[in-house]
Amino acid sequence: MSRYFTKTLSALEPYTPGEQRPSRDIVKLNANENPYPPAPGVAAAVAAAVPGLRLYSDLTNAALRRAIAQHWGVGPENVLCGNGSDENLLLALRAFCDGDTPLAFADITYSFYAVLCELLHIPQHILPLEEDFTLDLRRYEGLHETIVLANPNAPTSLLAPVEGIERVLQTNPDNIVIVDETYIEFAPPGSSCLPLLDRYENLVITHTFSKTHSLAGARLGFCLARPELIADMDRVKFSYSPYNVNSLTQAAGEAAIRDEDYFRDVTQKVLATRADTAQKLRARGFTVLDSATNFLFARPGGLPARTLYEALRAQGVFIRYFDAPRIRDWLRITIGTPQQMQRFFAALDAVL
Amino acid sequence: MSRYFTKTLSALEPYTPGEQRPSRDIVKLNANENPYPPAPGVAAAVAAAVPGLRLYSDLTNAALRRAIAQHWGVGPENVLCGNGSDENLLLALRAFCDGDTPLAFADITYSFYAVLCELLHIPQHILPLEEDFTLDLRRYEGLHETIVLANPNAPTSLLAPVEGIERVLQTNPDNIVIVDETYIEFAPPGSSCLPLLDRYENLVITHTFSKTHSLAGARLGFCLARPELIADMDRVKFSYSPYNVNSLTQAAGEAAIRDEDYFRDVTQKVLATRADTAQKLRARGFTVLDSATNFLFARPGGLPARTLYEALRAQGVFIRYFDAPRIRDWLRITIGTPQQMQRFFAALDAVL
Repeated sequence: MSRYFTKTLSALEPYTPGEQRPSRDIVKLNANENPYPPAPGVAAAVAAAVPGLRLYSDLTNAALRRAIAQHWGVGPENVLCGNGSDENLLLALRAFCDGDTPLAFADITYSFYAVLCELLHIPQHILPLEEDFTLDLRRYEGLHETIVLANPNAPTSLLAPVEGIERVLQTNPDNIVIVDETYIEFAPPGSSCLPLLDRYENLVITHTFSKTHSLAGARLGFCLARPELIADMDRVKFSYSPYNVNSLTQAAGEAAIRDEDYFRDVTQKVLATRADTAQKLRARGFTVLDSATNFLFARPGGLPARTLYEALRAQGVFIRYFDAPRIRDWLRITIGTPQQMQRFFAALDAVL
Repeated sequence: MSRYFTKTLSALEPYTPGEQRPSRDIVKLNANENPYPPAPGVAAAVAAAVPGLRLYSDLTNAALRRAIAQHWGVGPENVLCGNGSDENLLLALRAFCDGDTPLAFADITYSFYAVLCELLHIPQHILPLEEDFTLDLRRYEGLHETIVLANPNAPTSLLAPVEGIERVLQTNPDNIVIVDETYIEFAPPGSSCLPLLDRYENLVITHTFSKTHSLAGARLGFCLARPELIADMDRVKFSYSPYNVNSLTQAAGEAAIRDEDYFRDVTQKVLATRADTAQKLRARGFTVLDSATNFLFARPGGLPARTLYEALRAQGVFIRYFDAPRIRDWLRITIGTPQQMQRFFAALDAVL
């Protein structure tokens, strides 16, 4: 830190992302990216947006919000777009938390929640997951705090039931409950809290194009909520980054979400590979949690997780290892193409 | 505001942008956008980035930072990219200001500085411009506060001398001085503070691809500073938006800044049209400040500024009018193509 850096942030521990874009010849299963390219229409949509780049982007994201709304069966007034869902989380926390309004979340979940709390000076109320990494939602009932639940959760890959989340919404009527549904399309149908949007004025769903729509590099997240809450978050957006989503990404997102067939096809392929991968890992002595995501959270039977992680890495196969309490024995493995998983298992078998 | 909105931001007055993307048949001279499209290489660069969108963007912006560094004659370690220069300003203010470290800036300048201060709860020390809208830099000497100077300034279009800024840097050695050089390429050679980067550890220059590189819609800004200050701002970036610049924009920016010939050609055309426009306005009785930007700040001789603004608008010619103290009699007119300026003058003459 330079001597000019504000003392109020001197304890800041920035987010540690999964290692990005290393050399080309690796099998990259460490960032929960989709192994398939974006929908075929994305290239043309992006190309068409280039001449217009001289003009500022549409700061209301009108066309994109219409496409998202149509896909999810809500109105455009229920949608707010962000420069990645990280930004949507920032907008939500900035709008609904402050020094006196803590944020409650699990001890093992998306690590960015804690990072944002540090940045924004929001007190953290951390509630442990159960021994088996499930989320006991009764812990969140009647908390009277702003709450964020990743569902399905990362890195555990586990899904919590909508009914349990509904009770959290009911018993915290004066606080916002954010449900981060980043991985929801990899969960069984009926897992989303979307149907609750009509009934609970305190529900904010955050979501992203990074996973199911293969647009991690385009940075596009969104919130779904009642119009009053969207307006609150928009208020923050207009004070800190009015043109937050660029024109190219707006065009890419709209083209991607309008191609329902491609999206379904890619998602089905990932689910099939996930089932196959889980079965093969279990056959090799791994404990594998029942994944509702595009990754598996697994504990190796023989070798320590870290040893395995490093040995795979040495062979050019990147998965994710967290040197953190409770999960040091576990590995997070993103589902790749069948070809990538073949290379993964070849490397794994060479180690075992 | 909903009842959930944090009380700490209840007084927030979000930024008011120039009206964006109205119908196609207007002459849009209200947002200081470049009238020429981005460099011809941008389309191919963006297209080549599409298949890779499934992967997260390079959060170090390595290739783009190299290209920026090369163009400006600095090292990549002197460069930090942002999702528009608004984000770079946010990173700088968050890193170098806090509740006890106010920000000093002019009463008439880029309005986003005040908006960010409200959002971040940074006290504002507002120093008036002189009667003729020039910036008397002696007011900033020995202030012992963090300072932001837009140079050239907006909406006044006026340039302050580098020597004066150097004295501000010298006399505030314990505080960061941010020089916002958004419009610097439209100023005479030798106007930039870039040569001071080696000599002053407290200098941060912010800049953008929006104006000279015709990429307003791609959202790409950057800071130039000593590596220690870049590291400070990077620290904030990694806590709030690690993947802040998407892959498409990184590709577009790199292609744009590498095409030096196109950039020079476009800039020269804008300067030629600016000279012609200023002369024609003066011939019609306007007071026109000596612009060092891609816009003119002008006071009409006959009609009130607001009347003229509205009359032009009714004819589909959009310029910018600020209903604000001291500048109510003035208009900000972005320099368009010669054809656009012809339509502007036709509409103007119809009113006069």
